[in-house]
Amino acid sequence: MESQEFRRFGKEVIDLIADYIENVRDRNVLPSVEPGYLLKMLPEEAPEQPEHWHDVVKDVHNTILPGLTHWQSPQFHAFYPAGHSYASILGSMLNDGLSIIGLSWKASPVCTELEVITMNWFGKLLGLPEEFLNCSPGPGGGVIQGSASESTLIALLVAKDKTIRRLNIVDHIDDEDEIKPKLVAYTSDQCNSSVEKAGLLGSMKIKLLKTDANGRLRGETLKKAIEEDKAMGLIPCFVTATLGTTATCAFDPLYELGPICNRENVWLHVDAAYAGPVFMCPEYRHLMKGIEYVSSIVTNPHKWMLVNFDCSAMWLKDGRDIKRAFDVKRIYLDDTENNLNIPDYRHWQIPLGRRFRSLKLWTVMRIHGAEGLRKHIRSQISLALHFAKLVGADDRFLIEPEPSMGLVCFRLKDGDKTTQQLLENLTRKKKIFMVAGLYRTRYVIRFVVCSALTTKEDVEYSWDVIKIETDLMYTNLIHTLPQIKTMDEILSREMYEKLQ
Amino acid sequence: MESQEFRRFGKEVIDLIADYIENVRDRNVLPSVEPGYLLKMLPEEAPEQPEHWHDVVKDVHNTILPGLTHWQSPQFHAFYPAGHSYASILGSMLNDGLSIIGLSWKASPVCTELEVITMNWFGKLLGLPEEFLNCSPGPGGGVIQGSASESTLIALLVAKDKTIRRLNIVDHIDDEDEIKPKLVAYTSDQCNSSVEKAGLLGSMKIKLLKTDANGRLRGETLKKAIEEDKAMGLIPCFVTATLGTTATCAFDPLYELGPICNRENVWLHVDAAYAGPVFMCPEYRHLMKGIEYVSSIVTNPHKWMLVNFDCSAMWLKDGRDIKRAFDVKRIYLDDTENNLNIPDYRHWQIPLGRRFRSLKLWTVMRIHGAEGLRKHIRSQISLALHFAKLVGADDRFLIEPEPSMGLVCFRLKDGDKTTQQLLENLTRKKKIFMVAGLYRTRYVIRFVVCSALTTKEDVEYSWDVIKIETDLMYTNLIHTLPQIKTMDEILSREMYEKLQ
Repeated sequence: MESQEFRRFGKEVIDLIADYIENVRDRNVLPSVEPGYLLKMLPEEAPEQPEHWHDVVKDVHNTILPGLTHWQSPQFHAFYPAGHSYASILGSMLNDGLSIIGLSWKASPVCTELEVITMNWFGKLLGLPEEFLNCSPGPGGGVIQGSASESTLIALLVAKDKTIRRLNIVDHIDDEDEIKPKLVAYTSDQCNSSVEKAGLLGSMKIKLLKTDANGRLRGETLKKAIEEDKAMGLIPCFVTATLGTTATCAFDPLYELGPICNRENVWLHVDAAYAGPVFMCPEYRHLMKGIEYVSSIVTNPHKWMLVNFDCSAMWLKDGRDIKRAFDVKRIYLDDTENNLNIPDYRHWQIPLGRRFRSLKLWTVMRIHGAEGLRKHIRSQISLALHFAKLVGADDRFLIEPEPSMGLVCFRLKDGDKTTQQLLENLTRKKKIFMVAGLYRTRYVIRFVVCSALTTKEDVEYSWDVIKIETDLMYTNLIHTLPQIKTMDEILSREMYEKLQ
Repeated sequence: MESQEFRRFGKEVIDLIADYIENVRDRNVLPSVEPGYLLKMLPEEAPEQPEHWHDVVKDVHNTILPGLTHWQSPQFHAFYPAGHSYASILGSMLNDGLSIIGLSWKASPVCTELEVITMNWFGKLLGLPEEFLNCSPGPGGGVIQGSASESTLIALLVAKDKTIRRLNIVDHIDDEDEIKPKLVAYTSDQCNSSVEKAGLLGSMKIKLLKTDANGRLRGETLKKAIEEDKAMGLIPCFVTATLGTTATCAFDPLYELGPICNRENVWLHVDAAYAGPVFMCPEYRHLMKGIEYVSSIVTNPHKWMLVNFDCSAMWLKDGRDIKRAFDVKRIYLDDTENNLNIPDYRHWQIPLGRRFRSLKLWTVMRIHGAEGLRKHIRSQISLALHFAKLVGADDRFLIEPEPSMGLVCFRLKDGDKTTQQLLENLTRKKKIFMVAGLYRTRYVIRFVVCSALTTKEDVEYSWDVIKIETDLMYTNLIHTLPQIKTMDEILSREMYEKLQ
């Protein structure tokens, strides 16, 4: 494709994207395809001869779009948001257009420096303690990773390395192989799957401690687990606390966990993948009380902060730890260390190569401004509260636990099976998309305000769809069971469950 | 930013990218900035109020572009290429515009299925044995990762898990902690830093075995190392062979390493990050002789195959291994396994989230066609050979080892210090960018044909720059040392080195 063609086709793609976003509300959020649909539609071999761009575009319309789950649809309420904004897309286009790989400062100075700057900006917006930022006099700093999974794995590996070094020096244990099997990590039973996976990948035992009635890992629980393990000769090494759990958006009390970790020389990592950006709004900062005890924290602008996937923001209180753990030298990677707090980021991550990801974080912060970003967060929270109000007014439903951020968990009073049936029916109809969660072993439906396009009317539409489906479910029940005449009888949980 | 604005600004960015690429030849490949330059130019805080896109663009021109090392410049000959093509950018734009996260089939069926299809296409183009492909009846398959580093780490971790399971069953060793410290990985002293790092991250001893005179890891060397380690009670677990080393683009003989690994139950992983795409051309397939012995292979379309970073293609002979090692269940991630060879890719990788990366691999293969891609590879190799011819005609220089693919390693006969001085002078002048390598402990300059824009004239220009700089270096030498009158005397290595 020549430059002139790119100018033409690129502009057509801009329109295609804008058209898609403008009309995404009209599509079913879930696609109507069966597994293997695309395998049947596309050829089995790559074309031998070059094809025309317009033939590719035809296939985008006929084969790609029909197989999408529309994460940007205002009726997408599953998982957590996939960040999206026009400002971010423009930043990402610049990244692709310039196409550099920032594997060292010299490999593109601006790639390292804009990352330092945007991570300072973002950290300040969140109200993080200064020591986490590159602009502080200390060894702390921020870095953009690909995902919270990667960030958590890195934190675990660095904690492991640091603990081994400490035991080498303090306790004169020279044999790493003696230490490694004794290391233990802790997190809560509400942790994201990525935290458990980090233990698996990083070869460290990980214990999922029981949370309290509100889904929070409490200090007492951690303290007891650490004491028990130490008594058994194990070595506590790493804790992941969650600010905004995946299931119910619960916030672990850092002010309880932090002092214990500090006392025990345990690395405290915070997974705030979804909820982190809420700290841009001062009225929510009490939820990160105790942040000063933390060794590392990760939050994903690519979830709730309008930045396109992937862009995972991680800060460490001491960047020297990460460099000590991951440094591998090569002559072709010669980069002289400098004293300007400009890190060699390749030591801060798993891959060697680095995309120029700060560009989209930069364009989003500039085009929206701190004010615009706060407005976005607050508006999504208020939409979730509006949904909760609608659900709360229908006495067939229970909201449990309390709504938190953009998430509302609810269930039918009738019990797990009915609730599960409702979610399955809704998913089959493809008009709205939600997924399940567990709260105190009860099956709940998670409703998350995800798309930046979602309005009050969209939320009301989603609620209408849920209500109608619920009506229908109970009506069908009456028809299939003629001996039962009243809704009251239907609502008897025991009776209903027999039907499942 | 509203939709209408995006239509306007997005089209301006398309032109900005096309302008940049059309004129990148006129820029110095290396930037003229000092560390910290951007920190001085940009504000210390994010803007409170939204800014106008045109103000961002002004900063792109005034602050971003001046700090770039231009990887797409025809005078960029460092490291290995950073893939770039208009077709890839369009695919990437679609990914950003649609902005889905393919964390399961249901989360966007097309994301999983297009990845299966494009990895089948690409694997067939490379002539991989059918058993590596999803379209085969067996359990093999391809997946797109972010980097070769990630792919190699995953392969190592899966090998570790598989070995532990085997020893559990076969040798009835139940205690993982007894096995883990005994596991050993092998690679060559020419391996990429990411391979060594995989051992570090994956907590496995890794031995960098000595290569032969041509930078290749030989079967005899591996066999001896394995035997010695087994005699010491260690457990050989994982080997990474390289097809196209970073320093000199050497190819390890898989036909020697493979039978040993198979016999010893050792996982053989192949790092063909750069050179892999050459196997699209049948005349180079002898370099992967023995591929049928391999357990996993990775190559990066984002290097030499015109796909923008990041897109790392990995195939496994048995995808069940990876799923067994990495599966972590959650209720909100419910995805029913199907029998159609459509994998749950989230078990195949470190992160949970997945970008729709196959889009750009798909657009590149369609717009260029297999024929266009082969032409690109062959043309870059012939440009490298043209460069080698120019260097070879100047008797101040030596080419060592033989040119391989797009890489030519050369040095001044005068020795390491002179060669290093030449590279430093050239880097200081910023007209062309190359990095150093080591060949048989000698310092060599690596010249790689990287940019897809590079022409024969560009190669000749680069050579002229090198030649003039060399002339200048020797002339300066004459002036600073008036007692030495002739070039012959200067060329005496001992004398010249005294001056350094």
